[in-house]
Amino acid sequence: MATVKLVEETAAAARVKAIYDDIKATKKIERVPNFWRALAANPDNLERCRNQAKAIMKPGKLDLLTKEIIALAVSITNSCRYCINSHTAACQKLGMTPEQYGEFLAVAGLYNQFNKMADAFQVDPDILPLT
Amino acid sequence: MATVKLVEETAAAARVKAIYDDIKATKKIERVPNFWRALAANPDNLERCRNQAKAIMKPGKLDLLTKEIIALAVSITNSCRYCINSHTAACQKLGMTPEQYGEFLAVAGLYNQFNKMADAFQVDPDILPLT
Amino acid sequence: MATVKLVEETAAAARVKAIYDDIKATKKIERVPNFWRALAANPDNLERCRNQAKAIMKPGKLDLLTKEIIALAVSITNSCRYCINSHTAACQKLGMTPEQYGEFLAVAGLYNQFNKMADAFQVDPDILPLT
Amino acid sequence: MATVKLVEETAAAARVKAIYDDIKATKKIERVPNFWRALAANPDNLERCRNQAKAIMKPGKLDLLTKEIIALAVSITNSCRYCINSHTAACQKLGMTPEQYGEFLAVAGLYNQFNKMADAFQVDPDILPLT
Amino acid sequence: MATVKLVEETAAAARVKAIYDDIKATKKIERVPNFWRALAANPDNLERCRNQAKAIMKPGKLDLLTKEIIALAVSITNSCRYCINSHTAACQKLGMTPEQYGEFLAVAGLYNQFNKMADAFQVDPDILPLT
Amino acid sequence: MATVKLVEETAAAARVKAIYDDIKATKKIERVPNFWRALAANPDNLERCRNQAKAIMKPGKLDLLTKEIIALAVSITNSCRYCINSHTAACQKLGMTPEQYGEFLAVAGLYNQFNKMADAFQVDPDILPLT
Repeated sequence: MATVKLVEETAAAARVKAIYDDIKATKKIERVPNFWRALAANPDNLERCRNQAKAIMKPGKLDLLTKEIIALAVSITNSCRYCINSHTAACQKLGMTPEQYGEFLAVAGLYNQFNKMADAFQVDPDILPLT
Repeated sequence: MATVKLVEETAAAARVKAIYDDIKATKKIERVPNFWRALAANPDNLERCRNQAKAIMKPGKLDLLTKEIIALAVSITNSCRYCINSHTAACQKLGMTPEQYGEFLAVAGLYNQFNKMADAFQVDPDILPLT
Repeated sequence: MATVKLVEETAAAARVKAIYDDIKATKKIERVPNFWRALAANPDNLERCRNQAKAIMKPGKLDLLTKEIIALAVSITNSCRYCINSHTAACQKLGMTPEQYGEFLAVAGLYNQFNKMADAFQVDPDILPLT
Repeated sequence: MATVKLVEETAAAARVKAIYDDIKATKKIERVPNFWRALAANPDNLERCRNQAKAIMKPGKLDLLTKEIIALAVSITNSCRYCINSHTAACQKLGMTPEQYGEFLAVAGLYNQFNKMADAFQVDPDILPLT
Repeated sequence: MATVKLVEETAAAARVKAIYDDIKATKKIERVPNFWRALAANPDNLERCRNQAKAIMKPGKLDLLTKEIIALAVSITNSCRYCINSHTAACQKLGMTPEQYGEFLAVAGLYNQFNKMADAFQVDPDILPLT
Repeated sequence: MATVKLVEETAAAARVKAIYDDIKATKKIERVPNFWRALAANPDNLERCRNQAKAIMKPGKLDLLTKEIIALAVSITNSCRYCINSHTAACQKLGMTPEQYGEFLAVAGLYNQFNKMADAFQVDPDILPLT
């Protein structure tokens, strides 16, 4: 059970309702995901998070599937159950094949392993790149 | 300073030397990275990790830049200093532009934020996808 | 299902029973929370943890609500399901309003995002404060 | 050394310069912190993050010191070196005494311990509060 | 519900079936654990992970119970629900007593606390050991 | 540089001095480690943490090397630089050989990988053990 009371679509005030409609239209879905219905308990948080996500999660110099792959890698490393579920589904919807998912998972697993081994060794960086 | 004694290339036994040569040839670099020189303190670990990385970090159903982007997303979420440095450099070498890096970082930051908000809400998954 | 057998209040030995009674009296609750009933599988752990919590979680130079807010921020960042639930409830009981919770969550989310961006940049500290 | 090239104040374009000036004026500091100078490598990220932080990190239903305490609890739990340094300094500047810091640290330590013990037990939540 | 379709033993292709049989024979169990049935959705991942685990999780310079204790300490620190369950059971099967489990948990809890306090202090290492 | 002012042994008040002496005698070392000198900025924290560590880190149903191995597994998984250094040294002092360290690291790396793969799959536990 959630720690906050989710805001039902039928009970949403106008400000929240407009954001709900935008989420459904942009994502082409018929039901507002639970994360956003929980955020709506505080309309300021809902609006700020929605604007941030909308500005970032659109095709740009990286395509949308790559962005969802980054989101999934982050969510797996953070062990976020809701987000792993949501971004796995989003990757599939954007065309990720089971073979690509298998390769994704192998890479994500490999570096969760190597990250901790590198920390254990406390080795210095080899090079100092500039972006 | 490292917690293990790094194995210098000139001091490496034949088994380690062969892996060092393969690392330098595959990555087209002239010096074996510190992580691998630390792993070489235990040749079994070196060999197993090298074989695993070589099998996974090659172009497949996902291209190599996408794989390095996954590695960077994992490393940032784990706060692994050595690995962030190394995979930032690898992404640049594979052609990631500063604009792409900026978009990458915005996505990685966004979901480190949303992951914890979703955990705070303890909301149930919306859908249960099958890969 | 729990990984240890919880100790029922009716089945608790005298040493455990005394701690259970103290927990219920201090927290003004009628049932010993599951965490403490699991700890009771090892009375040494129960006693040590209870003494530590009792010494720390009382009004001092910081009031109790501030201490529960710290506990909730830690629990969210660690994604601890049981603890998020427990400390959200504790904050509410101590008077945290929904508006305050909304601000709390915005801050906790913001710095989970910025923490990882700062790690990605590997920037040096600006100043070196002394407490 | 940073993974991105920090944008010097003297070299900042007008859009970045305006944000730098606002940061210095709001925080009453004479030098833009390294985190923001790294973010400036991507002006979109700089602007979005600055607007987000400005909207959240102001007195509201929670006072500013409480917000910085939350930021510090998050940063310690995430082990973010830069952010621990920065938010420790901010708390001190806002009046946190060494005694309060000692209590803060005891609470943050306690729940990093209890979080993992509760995870180990896999105990069910006791109650399901609604905010 | 899992994010990938688990491969039933009766539906497994020959390559997967052989690994399933080996897992059951080595672990002396009658049912392939869910983790391996999920990995089997990608036979390359299954094979690589199985070979890695088989090479590492056998008595060597450290006995098998010590190795499972390490696995449990890692899994608790990562808050991995499935793995905590699995390695708690493995430790019990290898003879860990409730008293030993209690001491294990006290140590794991203690250092999750001290790790974050040390990070908060940002103290320098005292000594720089070489393995 | 540390975020708190370390308490020098020569400047320590009687209460702190007595704990310092006990630390040096118990650990058979000539200098109080930096972690404890930082804790001493708040004598209540110093005393409570010292008592907790002393009660836990002694031979019991688990020997001291096993306890330090648990501490090292936790510290690596948490990426705590100071603690990795300190517990690597403690393991060596207690007799851990380089070969044992190599096996330790392989196990710690393996389960940091498998933990995240299991989280990605969201598979249910196979069995529900009782300690």
